[in-house]
Amino acid sequence: MANKDKLVTAITSMDEDFAKWYTDIVKKAELIEYTSIKGCMVIRPYGYAIWENIQRILDRKFKETGHENVCMPMFIPESLLQKEKDHVEGFAPEVAWVTHGGSEKLEDRLCVRPTSETLFCEHYANIIHSHRDLPKLYNQWVNVVRWEKTTRPFLRSREFLWQEGHTIHATAEEAIVETERMLNVYADFCENELAMPVVKGKKTESDKFAGAEATYAIEALMHDGKALQAGTSHYFGDGFAKAFDITYTNKENKQAYPFQTSWGVTTRLIGAIIMTHGDDSGLVLPPAIAPIQAVIVPIAMHKESVLDVATSLKERLSATVRVKLDDSDNSPGWKFSEYEMKGVPVRIEIGPKDIENNQCVLVTRHNREKTVVSLDELESAVALKLQEVHDGIYQKALENREKHTYACKSMDEITKALEENGDGFVKAMWCGEEECEDKVKELTGVGSRCMPFAQDNISDTCVCCGKKAKHLVYWGKAY
Amino acid sequence: MANKDKLVTAITSMDEDFAKWYTDIVKKAELIEYTSIKGCMVIRPYGYAIWENIQRILDRKFKETGHENVCMPMFIPESLLQKEKDHVEGFAPEVAWVTHGGSEKLEDRLCVRPTSETLFCEHYANIIHSHRDLPKLYNQWVNVVRWEKTTRPFLRSREFLWQEGHTIHATAEEAIVETERMLNVYADFCENELAMPVVKGKKTESDKFAGAEATYAIEALMHDGKALQAGTSHYFGDGFAKAFDITYTNKENKQAYPFQTSWGVTTRLIGAIIMTHGDDSGLVLPPAIAPIQAVIVPIAMHKESVLDVATSLKERLSATVRVKLDDSDNSPGWKFSEYEMKGVPVRIEIGPKDIENNQCVLVTRHNREKTVVSLDELESAVALKLQEVHDGIYQKALENREKHTYACKSMDEITKALEENGDGFVKAMWCGEEECEDKVKELTGVGSRCMPFAQDNISDTCVCCGKKAKHLVYWGKAY
Repeated sequence: MANKDKLVTAITSMDEDFAKWYTDIVKKAELIEYTSIKGCMVIRPYGYAIWENIQRILDRKFKETGHENVCMPMFIPESLLQKEKDHVEGFAPEVAWVTHGGSEKLEDRLCVRPTSETLFCEHYANIIHSHRDLPKLYNQWVNVVRWEKTTRPFLRSREFLWQEGHTIHATAEEAIVETERMLNVYADFCENELAMPVVKGKKTESDKFAGAEATYAIEALMHDGKALQAGTSHYFGDGFAKAFDITYTNKENKQAYPFQTSWGVTTRLIGAIIMTHGDDSGLVLPPAIAPIQAVIVPIAMHKESVLDVATSLKERLSATVRVKLDDSDNSPGWKFSEYEMKGVPVRIEIGPKDIENNQCVLVTRHNREKTVVSLDELESAVALKLQEVHDGIYQKALENREKHTYACKSMDEITKALEENGDGFVKAMWCGEEECEDKVKELTGVGSRCMPFAQDNISDTCVCCGKKAKHLVYWGKAY
Repeated sequence: MANKDKLVTAITSMDEDFAKWYTDIVKKAELIEYTSIKGCMVIRPYGYAIWENIQRILDRKFKETGHENVCMPMFIPESLLQKEKDHVEGFAPEVAWVTHGGSEKLEDRLCVRPTSETLFCEHYANIIHSHRDLPKLYNQWVNVVRWEKTTRPFLRSREFLWQEGHTIHATAEEAIVETERMLNVYADFCENELAMPVVKGKKTESDKFAGAEATYAIEALMHDGKALQAGTSHYFGDGFAKAFDITYTNKENKQAYPFQTSWGVTTRLIGAIIMTHGDDSGLVLPPAIAPIQAVIVPIAMHKESVLDVATSLKERLSATVRVKLDDSDNSPGWKFSEYEMKGVPVRIEIGPKDIENNQCVLVTRHNREKTVVSLDELESAVALKLQEVHDGIYQKALENREKHTYACKSMDEITKALEENGDGFVKAMWCGEEECEDKVKELTGVGSRCMPFAQDNISDTCVCCGKKAKHLVYWGKAY
């Protein structure tokens, strides 16, 4: 990490080097800064404000659907982690271990939570006794640690922020409904607030969460044609309840095992936003989560009344919009670049000529379109432009995904589609055998992303073995 | 920890055993549950909702005073922790050490942050170059770990939640102003929102934060006469800047060291609320942070229209009050006890007779006073009662503190005051020598809490050595 280097003045272009373009943006837009620990980053004010907006909106949706927030400890004793066999196998290789408290060696090592199923289970066993105690619909907003070998800001960091919902129910049906409900909450959030189209589907057996009976996911396509898993929702059946001896007295006065779910999204969503909407001038932020929705840039600020009018516009807009007035002594040109880099959806330019004509200029970030509007209609004009940005970037992302989604009936078609059109989603039929799943990846480079809920029939036979097909699968290269 | 025990049906009385009364409340009001790791607790929905209310109010105050939220990593490399001598000496004995990531042994051990000065310093060194980069007014809401030997829920837990403000300024004056400003924000919050009177003052040299030039604190008196430090604000001078080589180019184009502060409050505040306002029926919550401000208990719920009217009252109040309607099939008597245990400030009783008379009964938690009010004036009557609860519990806490604050001129007077009136704050003069400070504690049992900003002169001589006094000190037994 360079110490006290000057900030780069321009970023690498997306087409030249997508990975470099990405890291240029996270640094130059001041979303993160590196630290001396690999994979652990500082989330800077601008990056954290995006996360706060994501949190605020999702937290409201969770509460509206009856969930309550709690907070579990960050440490899991090794003995507790080991109670569910698949779960410990999935996570033990990548956890950070605490072995000493002060100068004292601990008897039972503690891992820093990579996820909290085991802690919730221990807690449920303590507090659930009767059918009257069910369901519990819990969520927590916390940090977790997974000791990844390869790390990238937001996309794969050793520590990350997330929410993890954990619910427990009397019946399997109720738990399955919950698993699907929360996947839909995530999908609606991604589409309506992040302007990011997603595919909803079920993971294959080999790609399930460690300990789950079924894992649902939403998958988004990034600008470089790679797939990104943007959120997951797991149905556990009563497997964890049996492993942790969680029982309750049901209405028939018998002991029974309850059924569980968990679901989560992480700071990875910020990476998804960057790679879905960003361009060679920097970030493009969806208005719903933009820390600054509109920035006012005064032109010829020293001239009479410019700053006064700009200030009054700011005050008017503050009631409905997250607005910033940049009255620093940097040039307007510098400010234009700065707020384009930071992805502010709408720029408002106001100078002496505009004031004479009782107008200002609105510029939308994603297409740089300029519109002259009357100051009398400022509030409604800005609201309209914010909606235009949302709709515009959603449409652009959707078109990109459609352009890079290839329906294929044979292995050759897959290879050809990827070669000719670049990375993307491959839609192809699958027989359900792990052998074929592995072979598709080995031979074409794309792995199974999910079996979409919307199952259209591309052909009757497995793209790999030619036997009867059971599922339509989205395949892709994944982040 | 008892597994699947029935909940206790009554709590220990405060006078019988204050410590037991406290732990009974945290369990019975469902604020926390223990886990298999000593000192690490589950914060349950009702406890976490209190913390969310504290967060929401304080976060707004921080933002109004110009602060931005960030998020630092949770791990500190051992080498980084060691950079400031006093700081590492203060914290190293009580940190949790991560030694392994997955199966790999780490070269540099990582401690789980006990506080984040070192991380902020590393970051500042990376991002601060010029006087234009100053000040930075940062805050973060995170979890921290201190490996305490003796633990109690909220008051002293190995993991706790807090906010830590960290700011950096061009001048010492500006940093000192910030240190005091944030102490005042805390004090105002405690008094206006938590209804908890506090003494603002400066810590003695021996009681300063590790690495600070000066530590300010707010001290509150609990119901048992013990003092509780409810918040601290530290001025660091340029000591950390020098240890971490943070320099910037000042307006005269010379390299200079900036000046820093940090300040924090923790989930300990929940413990302070319990021990300031609670009684033998359970919690008493200040309305500003109560998850439920008013609970509606329908009487003779099966009778015609009772539930309909109760529901309509709930809907009316929802616009302005956090209100709950308990329409469960538990008896009204059970509900009265339950919401008294949970400290709900106002109870609203409504039955068939009330409906006939277009009225309901409001009962305030802290004094059980009943008031019959017309349904036409429900909103204003409830708002008035919430204010009455706030004022009433503040007054009660203030009277308790005044009754247990003893101005003393000699060691004998201290001993006598404590013996005759029980534990409390002792106000006595001090010469400034550590030897006398230690001796007061050794001979009377009370340690220095702070040198209050309001320095009245009780006598001219040190209560211990009889030499010229320099400071008025509040002494007390501390949590």
